[in-house]
Amino acid sequence: MSGVIETIHSRRSVREFSDKKVEDDKVLSVLDAGRWAPSAVNNQPWRFIVVSKRETLNSLAELTVDSRILENAAVAIAVFLDKNVRVGGDYRTKNVLSMGACVENMLIAAHSLGLGAVWLGEILKNKEKINDILEAPSSFEPVAVVAIGYPIQKERTSQRSELKEIAYSEKYGVPI
Amino acid sequence: MSGVIETIHSRRSVREFSDKKVEDDKVLSVLDAGRWAPSAVNNQPWRFIVVSKRETLNSLAELTVDSRILENAAVAIAVFLDKNVRVGGDYRTKNVLSMGACVENMLIAAHSLGLGAVWLGEILKNKEKINDILEAPSSFEPVAVVAIGYPIQKERTSQRSELKEIAYSEKYGVPI
Repeated sequence: MSGVIETIHSRRSVREFSDKKVEDDKVLSVLDAGRWAPSAVNNQPWRFIVVSKRETLNSLAELTVDSRILENAAVAIAVFLDKNVRVGGDYRTKNVLSMGACVENMLIAAHSLGLGAVWLGEILKNKEKINDILEAPSSFEPVAVVAIGYPIQKERTSQRSELKEIAYSEKYGVPI
Repeated sequence: MSGVIETIHSRRSVREFSDKKVEDDKVLSVLDAGRWAPSAVNNQPWRFIVVSKRETLNSLAELTVDSRILENAAVAIAVFLDKNVRVGGDYRTKNVLSMGACVENMLIAAHSLGLGAVWLGEILKNKEKINDILEAPSSFEPVAVVAIGYPIQKERTSQRSELKEIAYSEKYGVPI
């Protein structure tokens, strides 16, 4: 098994962090992985705001039921879709797909660097307040807040449906 | 640099394939990487149809300006969002984000296995015809067709905006 596939398999959502600071060069590596995602006609709709000030992390924490995660994270990366970036056709769906690729790159990069990370989505019920806190323009649509820190060691398990339940051969209905 | 980050950086869209068949176990590894993407409340909205029959690949090729890619690919994986899978809130955006994470996992897994792959999007102008050819139910929304094969060796370059153009520190407008 390749290192990449092993990393994809072993990544877990990490919600409990130690007090250890995350080095700036690791944060930059995570952002860099996001930047190298594919996008429709390479339009790169992603924008990032890196938050490490405790006061700001705590303000973001107030926007979500996952407040403890952000209160304990060393860093949070707010990930935005720049709605001014458009391509032809159904650009909304294409840009959101690209954003998902970007966030996944960041998550597996973080894992490969020994960091723990979790993709926060529930906080998006307060998109406008995220933008207010981070002084982001209205064209920036938050699609994820990625909380990052060094993981507290614990067993973390996850599950997925088997391929035979979700994949078909040549046409729908034929088992893989 | 970790192997994962190096793989993310070195992945390119591969549109020219050799005649070499892609081994079934590698196709399964690519699907498996997709399956292990994160999703909102782990709802796993992805479905896959693997196409390797030349006749079907040629039928799909007729749906896109990228026909030569599919005519020469060893395998194509049609990737669908199952619209019957819903979560609370803005589930459309969340599910599409998850699909993007899934496709990116497949692309970097393919690259790590020595395969070449490209995410075809233009073909999505013919979503209904994709479903007709593959006999997929209307609840399956195609979000990507991933063409896969062994790459013909050639130089493939790509570019991205610099981080300082797209990332900010603590709040919008402050350079990283």
